[in-house]
Amino acid sequence: MLEAMGIRAKDAARKLVLIHEEEKNNALAFIADQLWTCRDTILKANKEDVEKGHNSGLNDALIDRLMLDENRLKDIVQDIRNVISLNDPVGEIFDERTFDNGLEVYKIRVPIGVIGAIYESRPNVTVDVFGLALKSGNSVILRGGSETINSNREIVRIIQEALSTSAIPNDAIQFIDTTDRKAVEEMLKLHQYIDILIPRGSQKLHQYCRTNSQIPVMTGGIGICHLYVDESANLEDSLAVIRNAKIQRPSVCNALDTLLVQQAIAAKFIPEVIQELRKDGVTFCLPDQDLPYIRENDMDVVFHASEEDFDREWLSLVLGIKVVEGLHEAISHITVHSTGHSDGILTDDMEKAQIFINSIDSAVVYVNASTRFTDGSQLGLGAEVAISTQKLHARGPMALKELTTYKWVVKGNYHVRK
Amino acid sequence: MLEAMGIRAKDAARKLVLIHEEEKNNALAFIADQLWTCRDTILKANKEDVEKGHNSGLNDALIDRLMLDENRLKDIVQDIRNVISLNDPVGEIFDERTFDNGLEVYKIRVPIGVIGAIYESRPNVTVDVFGLALKSGNSVILRGGSETINSNREIVRIIQEALSTSAIPNDAIQFIDTTDRKAVEEMLKLHQYIDILIPRGSQKLHQYCRTNSQIPVMTGGIGICHLYVDESANLEDSLAVIRNAKIQRPSVCNALDTLLVQQAIAAKFIPEVIQELRKDGVTFCLPDQDLPYIRENDMDVVFHASEEDFDREWLSLVLGIKVVEGLHEAISHITVHSTGHSDGILTDDMEKAQIFINSIDSAVVYVNASTRFTDGSQLGLGAEVAISTQKLHARGPMALKELTTYKWVVKGNYHVRK
Repeated sequence: MLEAMGIRAKDAARKLVLIHEEEKNNALAFIADQLWTCRDTILKANKEDVEKGHNSGLNDALIDRLMLDENRLKDIVQDIRNVISLNDPVGEIFDERTFDNGLEVYKIRVPIGVIGAIYESRPNVTVDVFGLALKSGNSVILRGGSETINSNREIVRIIQEALSTSAIPNDAIQFIDTTDRKAVEEMLKLHQYIDILIPRGSQKLHQYCRTNSQIPVMTGGIGICHLYVDESANLEDSLAVIRNAKIQRPSVCNALDTLLVQQAIAAKFIPEVIQELRKDGVTFCLPDQDLPYIRENDMDVVFHASEEDFDREWLSLVLGIKVVEGLHEAISHITVHSTGHSDGILTDDMEKAQIFINSIDSAVVYVNASTRFTDGSQLGLGAEVAISTQKLHARGPMALKELTTYKWVVKGNYHVRK
Repeated sequence: MLEAMGIRAKDAARKLVLIHEEEKNNALAFIADQLWTCRDTILKANKEDVEKGHNSGLNDALIDRLMLDENRLKDIVQDIRNVISLNDPVGEIFDERTFDNGLEVYKIRVPIGVIGAIYESRPNVTVDVFGLALKSGNSVILRGGSETINSNREIVRIIQEALSTSAIPNDAIQFIDTTDRKAVEEMLKLHQYIDILIPRGSQKLHQYCRTNSQIPVMTGGIGICHLYVDESANLEDSLAVIRNAKIQRPSVCNALDTLLVQQAIAAKFIPEVIQELRKDGVTFCLPDQDLPYIRENDMDVVFHASEEDFDREWLSLVLGIKVVEGLHEAISHITVHSTGHSDGILTDDMEKAQIFINSIDSAVVYVNASTRFTDGSQLGLGAEVAISTQKLHARGPMALKELTTYKWVVKGNYHVRK
């Protein structure tokens, strides 16, 4: 079954290459309309998922992730409309040259082809991945989480119906409609048909894909994020940045995990941080040697950190804090513990900032800003399909351009190689 | 042992990021000198490999691939000097923007980090991969073929000695000095240390890496290459292009495998092709239905093609020929049988050429030129470390820029996300 889907997806991709931006936009607009028109059917299917989730004992946070209501659906529909407004990168010609022998060479931006996505929980991913893929001329094979199979099935059905009135083949979106885990195993072997695999979910899912996939995998989305506060920083402003990075949305990958504080300001600054953030419900995790910086009446929100705690992505209102002697120890700590997602320095010393930028090998390196900006919309891509922490192809937020590749075109006058 | 190499390679890579182009060039120049100065030791080690090869019954073609002499060594040394003359892409700043909120964002080109290479036979690969990797700021872990272990060991030793007089860490080049296949298995799991794996060798090696590697793999180098001759083509010039593509160097990946001929000119052109190329020792492989195009006295150099024969990379003086009705059948054939390496059209009809360019999804698409131009030097990269046929990261010839990635730098004034 999976191979047949692969063949159809490849075939759809070949047709999509030749489809004009306007036709893709028209189809997306019609899909947005249809998803809104059919909202009752989608919400009904989603209700089934929610009930199933309750019955199988999912916790409230997970139920909340999979739940749709009119407002969330409105946002999903709005996301598609945003994609329409983005420029189609396909067809861009670059690196144009004519060699001395008369050979004309250029590169042209083309869709990647077939995108496989494996994701958990949130049904908005179904629409997000499809919308960006279609706009950049790619077909998709989607494998959503079993907890949202009813919602996803309904969404995909509506999209396919909408496509059937357009020039775009229905197979531009296909959905693996089974909760059987064997389907994933089989999917990961389809390297002849699927050009890129995008997992969205837990570290375990990424590791599973990396180990078992014969398709190139875009790993990412796991962020152990650091901010280092240098003695020269404006501490009041730094506190605001730290608070934003930690509490604005603690469950996401660009939230702050570890705060590194230069020793010279630790005695003053750490109590301030704790005093401020404990109001938001944050608890703090410090290695034994740094516990002396904690005031007695803050000890109720502090626990002892083991070395492994600095390798945890908290995804919750916990903040690791560690005192470092200075910039170089901060860089060393980040080098060892970062997942290469988002790491920053807070400083008014631009020389130190530059050393930090040069030395930190993460997808996004910050100077005096919250790590929460690592996001396709915030960084000007208009949307995002994933955040890559690997070094091949794309790094950081991935949107339309990151779903394309290029081919070389060489034009001669019956040229032969000497 | 392998993990320790990984740690050292990562550490070397961190130092290499900060090393200036001039220092890298000086080191490369000194290495070139030293390889030439020590040529006797290298050639002696190579002689051992050649003798071992004879004793273990390697055929002449394989012995020729692993054999070094003064001329070949001179070419290898010259290749390093060429790399010195290429521009270091590291540090390039691009996609610079300042958002309305005052946040400054740019991307900066950085080395990938640690490059793993697994290759067979030719000892020049040791020097080529290292030279390009160093110039682009990367460290390498090399695993050469067991047939050239003595040559590779000696070359790496000389390079490391040369490095020890420079600012560049010796661990910028490391060599897996064992013929034990388990080392490869272990190497493929080092995704924490090796950022990209470049296999160079047979289809089997690529498949093995794709199946077993947890490190992102650049697959490529397998070329089932096509030329389609359209009725409008200048047939005399086309013949010259076909001959060049087939016979100039039949054992390499960009050599022509299959010639597709439009029916309208098949009766005239196929006999001309055979008459001309048989002089060079080419034999021809056609499906049964096309045998009527062969003249009686050419039947001695023709054999019947099965469908599978069009999925073979010949790497020898065999040319598949197939008659197609026209452009669309040619595109369909290439779509099914190409490995996405290099495919071309010979035509004077520029409308057809454009349809071909739009429809063929290969790393390099040709109009009126030999497929032999798919090569880093020929296409203006100055060198090449591999030819990618996958769609992620880089496509076609890979040299310095293709051994880099980018990171995002975001500078604010204590910005928080709203």
